[in-house]
Amino acid sequence: MTDRALSDVKVVDLTQHVAGPYATMILSDLGAEVIKVERPGSGDLARGNGPFINGESPSASLGTSSYFMSLNRGKQSLALDLQTEQGKEVFLKLVKKSDAVVENFLPGTMKRLGLDYATVKKHNPAIIYASVSGFGQTGPYAQTRALDITIQAMGGMMSLTGEPDGPPLRPGASLGDITAGLFTVIGILSALHERQKSGKGQFIDISMLDCQLAILENAFARYFATGKIPQRLGTRHPVFTPFQTFKTKDGYIAIALVGGTRNQWPLFCAAIGRLELIDDERYQTGEARTEHYAELEPVLNKAIKKKTTARWLKEFSELGIACGPVSNIAQVASHPQVKARKMITEVPHPRLGKTRVINSPIKLSRTPAAVKKAAPDLGQDTRELLTELLNMRKSDIKKLKESGGI
Amino acid sequence: MTDRALSDVKVVDLTQHVAGPYATMILSDLGAEVIKVERPGSGDLARGNGPFINGESPSASLGTSSYFMSLNRGKQSLALDLQTEQGKEVFLKLVKKSDAVVENFLPGTMKRLGLDYATVKKHNPAIIYASVSGFGQTGPYAQTRALDITIQAMGGMMSLTGEPDGPPLRPGASLGDITAGLFTVIGILSALHERQKSGKGQFIDISMLDCQLAILENAFARYFATGKIPQRLGTRHPVFTPFQTFKTKDGYIAIALVGGTRNQWPLFCAAIGRLELIDDERYQTGEARTEHYAELEPVLNKAIKKKTTARWLKEFSELGIACGPVSNIAQVASHPQVKARKMITEVPHPRLGKTRVINSPIKLSRTPAAVKKAAPDLGQDTRELLTELLNMRKSDIKKLKESGGI
Repeated sequence: MTDRALSDVKVVDLTQHVAGPYATMILSDLGAEVIKVERPGSGDLARGNGPFINGESPSASLGTSSYFMSLNRGKQSLALDLQTEQGKEVFLKLVKKSDAVVENFLPGTMKRLGLDYATVKKHNPAIIYASVSGFGQTGPYAQTRALDITIQAMGGMMSLTGEPDGPPLRPGASLGDITAGLFTVIGILSALHERQKSGKGQFIDISMLDCQLAILENAFARYFATGKIPQRLGTRHPVFTPFQTFKTKDGYIAIALVGGTRNQWPLFCAAIGRLELIDDERYQTGEARTEHYAELEPVLNKAIKKKTTARWLKEFSELGIACGPVSNIAQVASHPQVKARKMITEVPHPRLGKTRVINSPIKLSRTPAAVKKAAPDLGQDTRELLTELLNMRKSDIKKLKESGGI
Repeated sequence: MTDRALSDVKVVDLTQHVAGPYATMILSDLGAEVIKVERPGSGDLARGNGPFINGESPSASLGTSSYFMSLNRGKQSLALDLQTEQGKEVFLKLVKKSDAVVENFLPGTMKRLGLDYATVKKHNPAIIYASVSGFGQTGPYAQTRALDITIQAMGGMMSLTGEPDGPPLRPGASLGDITAGLFTVIGILSALHERQKSGKGQFIDISMLDCQLAILENAFARYFATGKIPQRLGTRHPVFTPFQTFKTKDGYIAIALVGGTRNQWPLFCAAIGRLELIDDERYQTGEARTEHYAELEPVLNKAIKKKTTARWLKEFSELGIACGPVSNIAQVASHPQVKARKMITEVPHPRLGKTRVINSPIKLSRTPAAVKKAAPDLGQDTRELLTELLNMRKSDIKKLKESGGI
């Protein structure tokens, strides 16, 4: 196996559900050794979430929930009860041999367990300790429960998603979780970089709500600049027109014109057969067209409804105008570009045979990211990790088992 | 100023629009010195995009486009014409003193300029060179033009956003650009980490389309597991119910129940005054409620419409059920948690006074990320960078100016 960028990085992963596991999945794909610490018997609660691959029964010990498998591929599973003294001891031994700890419990949980950053860093001052939560570790909402949808609602994303005269909607992905996962990875890698200079670890406090603001920076920038509250726009861009989807004869097409060195408006008008619009003074820039959208919209709708999506794609592409079909998940999965980029990959699973997962989009030329292996069954690596990483003797492991620690 | 995590990292930034600038903005907030190389006279095309702060005129040389300012805070601007030999020379000198180059031109552009990775690494083998593009540097679509909306359309996101009986919609953020920016940062930081061991740089090839698949991993996982194509669901979660928004007496509320150690369904039923649902065998798990949603929906809609959002928030919160209002951008900006987390910060601008920007969500305890300064006017740091970083003499700078290189 090619050496990976993070092959020297060891992560103790206490996360469950989506935000945390998404972060450690990215680290694993980049080569980090991720040791997923799970509660004996139940494990990551996402193990119980369907649908299940090949109908394999939703036993908590198995890793065959599609929901769980996609986020936990490449990790090891260590069943360890952090509520027992013996379990805590093993955890702290692990921390001493690791570079980072990641957890996404409700703030305060790790402190109650006696395993918060202040405690853990005494055992390893170089440890990087990332906590992911709905609202962060500080502030009046720190103890408020959050899940993806409540964060997408409270962070403003839903207020901007939907039709102008329709209700707020949820984007088609768990952006509350996913973006928090991405910023967590950036935090951990930044802290790792800094540690090369200082030798010291640090605490990283990622809030899902904070991350929503960060990805909505453009909406906030417009609000700060104008005082106008950004609204839902269907498929349109807040600044430029056309930068949206249109209904075609047989489906939908996304079309986007940008300003720049070459003005695409005359080409676009020619393509839709409306040459008189080229010099119409209302429509000379993307912003002006947004301002006069009410008059322009019916003209564009009518023109674009006349041909099929495939026909328009050909015509606009030839003019160098950015365009694309609205594809469903099956169409994306079979797209030639997705195949050429190997964005869907197969990992062998001991019981299920080959399972498909989305590959890492981080294409590094010399140390490429890659999916290492299928998601683990609960506790499948417990014995090996205790024996080989922590050098525990058989008799000690037996005692640990009897005490309920593992 | 506290030392920042990436304060020893120097980035030559050739990017414009959103995806690339978003990546280098994050690096800048984390302490990296980002030198934005812009074409003399025009600069980053986003400089021309409104709205403009305080109505300052949309001159290309100014940095007062709200669109541009939010993404380019903290960077330096070097006006340099890469189409001239003199400009190329200065660029290569810069590269020798830098850690990373980031560009988001159409693939092939840097090669035509004679400044692609193969060339640049001859001048600095340790350089990390990240290219961000719509479809990546390889594959049959590499040369296809893309903008945010066409990527959100082609990647599947829009097929999942909207009401079940409505058209595909665009989520309220430039997710095509933003997520590519986030993965680019992760790629650069991973390559930096690896370079500590190998001493070598590498090429990073980020495709906006690849990144869409990466953030939609759950939709693909469900499709791979079941063969069913995921559909638009309004505000609902594909697996669990309730995990959505409801209309209240005076607005909307997001409510999410998850399985886990405590079953919240009885509490939820009690709160909405429908005790008979508690033991209804159709509704015992989040998945079962999704399966029987057609029968359940009218019951829930009717119950939740009876009280105000504020009232429900209080009642559900007291029961430990995750819930939140659907907030607009103004409400988010004034939210007490957002204030407590200092997620909106002010940076002084030489002409505009204090301007507000969204802060970094990467809260590192010892080396916190922070916004360094306002976005630069075009070329404002040219002279200083040439003199101090590249040690060029006044006479050489004069010649460079005369040749049109700067």
